[in-house]
Amino acid sequence: MTWIEDPAFTADEPFGPQTLPYGVLPTGIAVRVGDQALPLRPIADHFGRLADLVSASSLNPLLAAGRTAWSELRARLTELVTASSAPRGATLVPLDGAVLPFDVADYVDFYSSRNHAENVGRIFRPDGEPLLPNWTHIPIGYHGRAGTVVVSGTPIVRPHGQRRTSDGPVFGPTGRLDIEAEVGFVCGGPVASRLTPSQAVDHVFGVALVNDWSARDVQAWEYQPLGPFLGKSFATSVSAWVTPLEAFAVARVTPPPLGNDVLPYLVEERPWGLDIRLEVEWNGDLVSKPPFRAMSWTFAQQLAHLSANGATVRPGDLIASGTVSGPARDERGSFLELSWGGREPVRVAGEERTFLEDGDTVRITATAPGEHGSLVGLAEVVGTITPADV
Amino acid sequence: MTWIEDPAFTADEPFGPQTLPYGVLPTGIAVRVGDQALPLRPIADHFGRLADLVSASSLNPLLAAGRTAWSELRARLTELVTASSAPRGATLVPLDGAVLPFDVADYVDFYSSRNHAENVGRIFRPDGEPLLPNWTHIPIGYHGRAGTVVVSGTPIVRPHGQRRTSDGPVFGPTGRLDIEAEVGFVCGGPVASRLTPSQAVDHVFGVALVNDWSARDVQAWEYQPLGPFLGKSFATSVSAWVTPLEAFAVARVTPPPLGNDVLPYLVEERPWGLDIRLEVEWNGDLVSKPPFRAMSWTFAQQLAHLSANGATVRPGDLIASGTVSGPARDERGSFLELSWGGREPVRVAGEERTFLEDGDTVRITATAPGEHGSLVGLAEVVGTITPADV
Repeated sequence: MTWIEDPAFTADEPFGPQTLPYGVLPTGIAVRVGDQALPLRPIADHFGRLADLVSASSLNPLLAAGRTAWSELRARLTELVTASSAPRGATLVPLDGAVLPFDVADYVDFYSSRNHAENVGRIFRPDGEPLLPNWTHIPIGYHGRAGTVVVSGTPIVRPHGQRRTSDGPVFGPTGRLDIEAEVGFVCGGPVASRLTPSQAVDHVFGVALVNDWSARDVQAWEYQPLGPFLGKSFATSVSAWVTPLEAFAVARVTPPPLGNDVLPYLVEERPWGLDIRLEVEWNGDLVSKPPFRAMSWTFAQQLAHLSANGATVRPGDLIASGTVSGPARDERGSFLELSWGGREPVRVAGEERTFLEDGDTVRITATAPGEHGSLVGLAEVVGTITPADV
Repeated sequence: MTWIEDPAFTADEPFGPQTLPYGVLPTGIAVRVGDQALPLRPIADHFGRLADLVSASSLNPLLAAGRTAWSELRARLTELVTASSAPRGATLVPLDGAVLPFDVADYVDFYSSRNHAENVGRIFRPDGEPLLPNWTHIPIGYHGRAGTVVVSGTPIVRPHGQRRTSDGPVFGPTGRLDIEAEVGFVCGGPVASRLTPSQAVDHVFGVALVNDWSARDVQAWEYQPLGPFLGKSFATSVSAWVTPLEAFAVARVTPPPLGNDVLPYLVEERPWGLDIRLEVEWNGDLVSKPPFRAMSWTFAQQLAHLSANGATVRPGDLIASGTVSGPARDERGSFLELSWGGREPVRVAGEERTFLEDGDTVRITATAPGEHGSLVGLAEVVGTITPADV
């Protein structure tokens, strides 16, 4: 029996000692233990040479410290939280008030679910091939707006934007506000470029959930030829707690085949697909269970690709997977897909929905298999829509 | 006669007292006076309440300080550099060693030259309309990689990338390395969103030249449907010295008509087109004179658009105009256009060129009309291509 008496802090629960995600409270870095948080600054002297890293006011110095420090810290934390008595100075606090846990450097959003890419292709380009010919050769991605990444719980103001009507373009609040349920990878380690997939793994500190809110009417009108911009840049939500990559050791799976060879710079010796199971709740109703194991490109391939041209990977870079969609209807990770472009409404908490209405709340959670039959948790990413500013 | 005895520091020269651009040397912030620099930290006590801002080691605190501080600093600097005797503590130093003068927050690249957009459309999509229907309604843009913005003079390593051949995709050094001659706007002031074009002006600290290096073979294969990514993200060069927006008061012009009304959120009372005249030198030969006054969308409209959905503008955001191309062949701002997709080689320093070869140097400079017939200078952005890493 550990000194932490929390029913959610057992190996049977997703935030038990097998998980130990990091977050930042107004008082500094903390680790999540069940449904409480253990602030690290008051117990920094238990961490030896890592004391400064755990005393910082964001995760960025820890991100920069690299794999060896991350492993050492996790091992020491595991000792401390599973001990029978509390370390001197330790107190547990509520999870409330967690802030964005790191300063986002560059934010890249990929597009690595074949089901999502094909669904969107069918909806946006009904007369063309659903999948473009580059998709099975390149982990397609684009840069998003780092300055509007927000922590889970931040209200999402319905964005204005320009959209096309039969009378020409108009400007006003979006009528097609959507989600994208994604998995995000938080980068760290030394600034580096031209990483192999094996090396890339050493530049990933941990994993969070991402909701890449999207205004589909704005996106559809603006996105050619340079890609999504205003349809995405108003807000991207991430979990307040980042689960270390080390916790996913037994969740590794082989992604589905692409149907063609990939170029050598993208070949993984042992693939980094992950069996992360997402759940999307819309106003409290479970509407989708997107399976991350269905993604065709892994984060290791994504990082190898994005750094292949000499571009550097920096601590704080956030790599999102792209919308996670599986083949089944109830595995789709966006409401664009769930409602098939708005033509097939979804029953949500007793009401019909296509896209998001003001006051709607979306909550995404996830777990992955852990050691000895346990579950590794990814902290929720939640947001409620507030009316457009006047 | 001022105490600064530099033949390049007169009202007849682009870096005379009418210009006064800011940069950062290893010793801190400096202002450019002719072909020398005046470090500000040693004379900080001449700036009253602004002393801390000029003593910083990057421009970011000054960017955050906002329009009133910028004007006050420029007025005080003008007094000091035009005085007959040197302020106590002042020394002049060479321009060498200037570093990236600010930490780039988000980097957005627009696409606001109609000639460029039409040329690229004709070259990349020969069977379609050269200009897409959204272009005259939206300042089209996308997010670039902030982490690979580098200061003028940084060598540009030929990037690797994936490109398509008749035998399928291959990976290796780009064979179509190109430039994009652009004008960049450095943002500051309080974090803000939903700016009108008039308000947007108060969020622009100054102007620099940008070379958005591009690998055209990589770009052509990757860019659908999410836009440019690896074809651009390896490096973007910016001037070491940022000319304050205030210096461009008499350079304002009305942009060419779009051919349709724009939505009210993009209407400028008095347009912020700027008569900046660029020159592109390829291995010392002047190959193009792109006219910025030919751009269809202004920076004020670009900022109003990018913040219209609630996205915040932060100090350190860099807004690039997009390639500056005029209607004439010798006004094109990329070698893709100058060589018409590589089919019409250009004569450069006695050799034929289509795209960049290892060892090539590109230098972009610019001036704009200043008060009383003077010229306002934009500092050069220069780069030399080094061979691809093995």
